Amino acid sequence: MEFSEWYSDILEKAGIYDLRYPIKGCGVYLPYGFKIRRYSFEILRKLLDETGHDETLFPMLIPENLLAKEGEHIKGFEDEVFWVTHGGKTPLEVKLALRPTSETTMYYMMKQWIKVHTDLPLKLYQVVNTFRYETKHTRPLIRLREIMSFKEAHTAHATKKECDAQIEEALTLYKAFFDEIGVPYVISKRPEWDKFPGADYTMAFDTIYPDGKTMQIGTVHNLGQNFAKTFELEFETPDGEKDFVYQTCYGISDRAIASLISVHGDEKGLVIPVDVAPIQIVLIPLLFKGKEEIVMDKIKELNNTLKSEFRVHLDDRDIRPGRKYNDWELKGVPLRIELGPRDIENGHALIVRRDTGEKITVEYSNILEEVEKIVSMYKENLKLKAEEKVKSFITVLDFENDVNSLSEKVKAKLLENKGIILIPFNESIYNEEFEELIDASVLGLTTYEGKEYISVARTY
Amino acid sequence: MEFSEWYSDILEKAGIYDLRYPIKGCGVYLPYGFKIRRYSFEILRKLLDETGHDETLFPMLIPENLLAKEGEHIKGFEDEVFWVTHGGKTPLEVKLALRPTSETTMYYMMKQWIKVHTDLPLKLYQVVNTFRYETKHTRPLIRLREIMSFKEAHTAHATKKECDAQIEEALTLYKAFFDEIGVPYVISKRPEWDKFPGADYTMAFDTIYPDGKTMQIGTVHNLGQNFAKTFELEFETPDGEKDFVYQTCYGISDRAIASLISVHGDEKGLVIPVDVAPIQIVLIPLLFKGKEEIVMDKIKELNNTLKSEFRVHLDDRDIRPGRKYNDWELKGVPLRIELGPRDIENGHALIVRRDTGEKITVEYSNILEEVEKIVSMYKENLKLKAEEKVKSFITVLDFENDVNSLSEKVKAKLLENKGIILIPFNESIYNEEFEELIDASVLGLTTYEGKEYISVARTY
Repeated sequence: MEFSEWYSDILEKAGIYDLRYPIKGCGVYLPYGFKIRRYSFEILRKLLDETGHDETLFPMLIPENLLAKEGEHIKGFEDEVFWVTHGGKTPLEVKLALRPTSETTMYYMMKQWIKVHTDLPLKLYQVVNTFRYETKHTRPLIRLREIMSFKEAHTAHATKKECDAQIEEALTLYKAFFDEIGVPYVISKRPEWDKFPGADYTMAFDTIYPDGKTMQIGTVHNLGQNFAKTFELEFETPDGEKDFVYQTCYGISDRAIASLISVHGDEKGLVIPVDVAPIQIVLIPLLFKGKEEIVMDKIKELNNTLKSEFRVHLDDRDIRPGRKYNDWELKGVPLRIELGPRDIENGHALIVRRDTGEKITVEYSNILEEVEKIVSMYKENLKLKAEEKVKSFITVLDFENDVNSLSEKVKAKLLENKGIILIPFNESIYNEEFEELIDASVLGLTTYEGKEYISVARTY
Repeated sequence: MEFSEWYSDILEKAGIYDLRYPIKGCGVYLPYGFKIRRYSFEILRKLLDETGHDETLFPMLIPENLLAKEGEHIKGFEDEVFWVTHGGKTPLEVKLALRPTSETTMYYMMKQWIKVHTDLPLKLYQVVNTFRYETKHTRPLIRLREIMSFKEAHTAHATKKECDAQIEEALTLYKAFFDEIGVPYVISKRPEWDKFPGADYTMAFDTIYPDGKTMQIGTVHNLGQNFAKTFELEFETPDGEKDFVYQTCYGISDRAIASLISVHGDEKGLVIPVDVAPIQIVLIPLLFKGKEEIVMDKIKELNNTLKSEFRVHLDDRDIRPGRKYNDWELKGVPLRIELGPRDIENGHALIVRRDTGEKITVEYSNILEEVEKIVSMYKENLKLKAEEKVKSFITVLDFENDVNSLSEKVKAKLLENKGIILIPFNESIYNEEFEELIDASVLGLTTYEGKEYISVARTY
């Protein structure tokens, strides 16, 4: 099955996201999908809270004159902004944009809060919906008109040094986040022509989808003093001088969810990383005539034992076990535990791993410990598999002075192996003309195994 | 100080909400305010999750034809809907409403999901931003153009009986929620002319603000089959017949936060209920020359002891203790613990309650237990005080056949005691004409101490 078909199919069948809403690029997070989102963003929140970021909530509407304040920024967004022009039947005096992102909103407010160096650093974030009038093909959780979950962090600092250090902190946080949700990544410094509108430079996380195309899943922008000058974010330094703050911003969206689904899934359905799984363990009783009560009693006991540490679901529906297996494999539940009369007689239980399909018979008396062990193997394996997949998608080419010959080789490799092609850095090909020649995107400058490359790929 | 002045003042000074945004009725949840919101809505989420409600996320934009599908419903909202008319520079073919509430969105989708009685009950909720083009005076967290937090639950049932039972469940949940965040309430069945547009009837929670005006803080609507017929929510019953589902919906907004602030605050600032306090205990070291290290070591130890159960903050700023006391009293931190050299010598610590101002010397060796005891007294006291306040605002009048004389008495009482006036039910005054006569609102039918009354009040 083609990846994109598999993807649409699994979103519907596993109850992740329903796109049958009468506006293109707008859909519904279904209960199961919402739980994955909730657990994922809780991990992100925890990482941010622990490093001194404060959660806030800013307005969704932006007056036109405020959005237009930063020239480059508005140029980057003006074709894709939704505009509110009426309240009831009354035309508004100033039209209002649905936030495409919140720099202008947040920096307008920061102006009220930042007066002196002791007000800094300021490290804020919010998790909100944002909007883009996409005219291109939309794709659920990947290219939406309503991005339902956008975690955007915005920081302000007294010195360039602290600002640069914040970029490092953001990269570290995002690495930790993607590691925890099991999504592998390649980090690149985006080329000038593809950086965030208004930024000094942009660092980006890309992952690779099963079809070999890359997906941008996180960005970290060093804004320098650009926005600060526009928004007059001036403060008094310890020496009593005036200076503009240095700023960073960084964001992660629903694409994190799309990616953890896409990277791990297989032909049977989802394979969910343990930490974000709505159900971590499903219990299936194997009922035989006359033994129903013994089995149900035992499996309820097991449910209680495991509940203290895991999100467990006891599937006691009156359908045959085989159908239950299929249902929960489709939904990507990490572990399934089967318990029948013979298991109980022998003091055993059967654990089945979703990632490898492996069946493991364990001592019932020791089950919590056994489950913990298998859960940590599952985590380790998912991480390894994801990293291997990404590695298998990376090809290193030699640089050649003959641009035409080089670009032919790149194109051939992109057709053959897909994924990311790395070429040792050379200024002569680091430009948009090269993108046109290879009919693919320059992701930017990527450090890989200690060396610096230009990375190129077909992107989503 | 006037209540409304106190309220605006405290939002700013305590860092709850900043309204200096260039759109009327739109503002920013600041870090401290956001935490109160987060803890409050977590309580609500937990209550909903435990009773089988599933969290979801639906689109924010509603096509005009979908919003207009239910005639009464759209009539109730059409004057206050914000309309998106353009994407970039392109006029949209169908204009899009910013959701004022999500009945139409959700029921359009329910049509895709409900086919047969086994698909029921369906109990969904979401916590989202909603929008009203308010032309009246706006007020932070009370009357907003962007309602930043709206928890809306929507359920569908196979029978009227189950639907009615769901109304009871919703009332029970909301009671538990307001009890936990310490906001007292009076429940009324709203009169016909004030029910939710499209509902069979509306039950509402009102609390009373310090100025004697009531604030609607939660509503529970029995929609019967009204929306189901419009949205064709038909299903196959166990007998193979066709029927329309029975529906309820119920919502709680930022007003819950506004109310817990307003009901408990005093002239020194906020008094926050323990369960939603961003900081539950603040530790203040009393430093004397030469004893700094002893005190700091001990108070760090105390911090570690208490952290296991409470949200604790150690205030080690280099300012005098008096200023710290003021800061944390303003922010409404439930308990303050002071520790100085003499306390350490005597094996004591001093605990100060924010609600009563009481100072309690406790044995340091037993401090966790002592704190737990005081915390539970604090909770109990806040609940009692809030209930007493509401009771003191309730006046019962006798019914009189002479409507003019009765309305004069109501008006006098409203001037004198403010709050809610209860009048034994009589059909002759249960109408909008009576509202005009008394220049106040009929809240509806209220059961109070076992009897049924018509309740009237000045409302926000």
